[in-house]
Amino acid sequence: MAATDVTMDKVVSLTRRRGFVFPSSEIYGGLGSTYDYGHYGVLMKNEIRTLWLRAMVQERDDIVALDSAIILNPRVWEASGHVAGFTDPLVDCRTCKLRFRADKLEDSNCGRKPSKRPGETADCDLTEPRQFNLMFETQVGAMQDEASQAYLRPETAQGIFINFKNVLQLARRKPPFGIAQTGKSFRNEITPGNFLFRVREFEQMEMEFFVPPDDAEQWYRYWVEERLNWHRGLGLRDENLRVREHGAEERSHYSSGTSDIEYLYPIGWQELEGVANRGAFDLTQHTQHSGTKLEYVGPDGERYVPHVVEPAVSIERIFVALLCDAYREEVVGERERTVLQLSPRVAPVKAAILPLIPRDEGMATRAKNLFGELRRRFSVEHDDSGQIGRRYRRQDEIGTPWAFTIDEQTLEDETVTVRDRDSLAQERVPISGVASWLSAALERPWSPPAAA
Amino acid sequence: MAATDVTMDKVVSLTRRRGFVFPSSEIYGGLGSTYDYGHYGVLMKNEIRTLWLRAMVQERDDIVALDSAIILNPRVWEASGHVAGFTDPLVDCRTCKLRFRADKLEDSNCGRKPSKRPGETADCDLTEPRQFNLMFETQVGAMQDEASQAYLRPETAQGIFINFKNVLQLARRKPPFGIAQTGKSFRNEITPGNFLFRVREFEQMEMEFFVPPDDAEQWYRYWVEERLNWHRGLGLRDENLRVREHGAEERSHYSSGTSDIEYLYPIGWQELEGVANRGAFDLTQHTQHSGTKLEYVGPDGERYVPHVVEPAVSIERIFVALLCDAYREEVVGERERTVLQLSPRVAPVKAAILPLIPRDEGMATRAKNLFGELRRRFSVEHDDSGQIGRRYRRQDEIGTPWAFTIDEQTLEDETVTVRDRDSLAQERVPISGVASWLSAALERPWSPPAAA
Repeated sequence: MAATDVTMDKVVSLTRRRGFVFPSSEIYGGLGSTYDYGHYGVLMKNEIRTLWLRAMVQERDDIVALDSAIILNPRVWEASGHVAGFTDPLVDCRTCKLRFRADKLEDSNCGRKPSKRPGETADCDLTEPRQFNLMFETQVGAMQDEASQAYLRPETAQGIFINFKNVLQLARRKPPFGIAQTGKSFRNEITPGNFLFRVREFEQMEMEFFVPPDDAEQWYRYWVEERLNWHRGLGLRDENLRVREHGAEERSHYSSGTSDIEYLYPIGWQELEGVANRGAFDLTQHTQHSGTKLEYVGPDGERYVPHVVEPAVSIERIFVALLCDAYREEVVGERERTVLQLSPRVAPVKAAILPLIPRDEGMATRAKNLFGELRRRFSVEHDDSGQIGRRYRRQDEIGTPWAFTIDEQTLEDETVTVRDRDSLAQERVPISGVASWLSAALERPWSPPAAA
Repeated sequence: MAATDVTMDKVVSLTRRRGFVFPSSEIYGGLGSTYDYGHYGVLMKNEIRTLWLRAMVQERDDIVALDSAIILNPRVWEASGHVAGFTDPLVDCRTCKLRFRADKLEDSNCGRKPSKRPGETADCDLTEPRQFNLMFETQVGAMQDEASQAYLRPETAQGIFINFKNVLQLARRKPPFGIAQTGKSFRNEITPGNFLFRVREFEQMEMEFFVPPDDAEQWYRYWVEERLNWHRGLGLRDENLRVREHGAEERSHYSSGTSDIEYLYPIGWQELEGVANRGAFDLTQHTQHSGTKLEYVGPDGERYVPHVVEPAVSIERIFVALLCDAYREEVVGERERTVLQLSPRVAPVKAAILPLIPRDEGMATRAKNLFGELRRRFSVEHDDSGQIGRRYRRQDEIGTPWAFTIDEQTLEDETVTVRDRDSLAQERVPISGVASWLSAALERPWSPPAAA
């Protein structure tokens, strides 16, 4: 099945059916493009986050972790430019009473005649565009006045910049060094959509890398390459990844270079991760607004405002890319199957333990014991429901790389069958060696199977 | 040092100094009782969350994970009773213009004369109490009308109840089963304070366990015991933990039993975790408000609304309890030291790698190589700054259980010194065996050292 045959609808349907993702607040009619993650969705997101933190923090000695608050002092967002400029142009339709992004009219549908696009029909009577700020507002404390006005952060990055001095002093760092953070951000999108691709609350993984100004260009190139390789390491197919460098007209005024690592989603090439050379803009802004000098002073008295290189990605976009990349409908013999060919590193369940005949006490006991042993170290699942073929197909759909089946032969020689999700090859392994077999299998390099 | 000598101020000072926790938005004058977590704080919180998920989800077969949205359909909070009743009584002082919780006046200070308590002085001219809703409000979408009004969730539990049917159907569960969730919740506290003990945004870890009504009492007792043991397993001292059952007058009207697992914080015995027998209240409310029947229908047509047992805790309260429990000031020989005697399972850094003489090339190279090997599997730190004694004291203060020192003897026989944080005992281990030594050490049961 070619990647182009994978539609967002098919992926949404599978994730719903198998409990990865549910439309949020569904019993109350939902809430726009908001989603809740079910069991497998949570496990998979946790793997993505853990792998990011491992690559960005644990396995390096030049990056430290941070977890700043979601509701910061509102002056942070004045300094960053978000209060004045984090806006989208908005138009109202006087006929259908809906609102649209003025710069995305071609993607919007008229509320009265959904088949007609608002920009193209005489039905739609649009107002002049006005600027709509995408930050969610709220009030902190019991006083409802201007002083209590606050925002939900639209990005985690600013929480990093305002802690620059703390890390410099207390974590005893000097450039080049980075600060990494994962956490929820909120944007009041006018037109969210495309499943998890554009949602109002999402989990960012951002790292701000502070460098001597003269080295910024070199570090910018380094991080584009480094992050691209990280996505490859998740198992995303090479042909579905590319780097697109922004033209000068597309970049922020302070940026001297921005690249998108793009993925070929079913809706086309779109940003998966952005890497930006932000220069001294952020630290300079916060120095001016806070009165606290955010600069590096070396032991010899050298003094400069570090430049910042920022790789920024959301778990949601990785999650959708992984699902689209892994989704395959295959015909095996006379049977059709749907399978998620996820890398074992990101698969929500690493292995299934299946007693062939659940009512056979010998098989049931061995399966339970094996499950009890494995679950202390791995995310595994025990399934004793229904026919073995149905159980295999269920595990295929949630992307479980291996299934250990306890069968008649197990009762004779204490070996189990290992079934490989992708090749469907089967081999036998001693039941006592399953844990170390699985441990070794998870360490092996993995690449996506060639298209059938 | 007796636990009663540990003051919150000492713990706050250590966590600030060593980069566990910073007051948030500090360069802008802060924001009430809001905090940002530095490197060690993040690593320690991640360990707490991972251990909770392992105990509550991975190592069980009757609980699944969920991650629901922070901004839900606002009708959820009508059904749950939060819109009408999630309030604190608030009084204004006409003299000092501050606001106080009417039920906590004895803990509050007058703004004009901070030494005087508002309830006790003639200075304060208090209004009659009125009810203040603790939910943060916001607006979703570009329309600013009643329909767009929304709330930041004050608890993760309701996101679980509204997904009850999804899990029942798609995860093919039947009672008894549980749904577990970790994530940020927000409460607009009138008087936050006591460091991280009462903050406006915090990370909850909640699990709703759905059971046949007749079994609710038994499961309630089970979960009180289970959760108490889990906290013991984190290394919290027995004498600082107790269970306090609420009297009938203290409980919610729908609860037939609530127990607090309390910890002896420096501010006294306070709730660490709550375990509540919530009956059928939540599912019944959402059935009535949504029109969707939230009940269990068995294969034989038996039909009931499950009762709910809920253990609910925040990472912040565990984090503070662990730090207070672990904090010790000791005199060792002629030297004083401050040490965090954290369980290795929750310690942010598991081991430090220290070249005794950093400018010695043989030591430096071996230390770097060992660090490179260990960090692929463990959270470890390489430190080649300053005198070895200062480096040990630094690791003591961040609670690192073991330090591997590369010294002269290493150059001769390829062994390193292992220093134990608590006993200060030293032994030698082959450098090639350090990874498996550390792996085994982390598996060993741990209990807090007896008070000196």
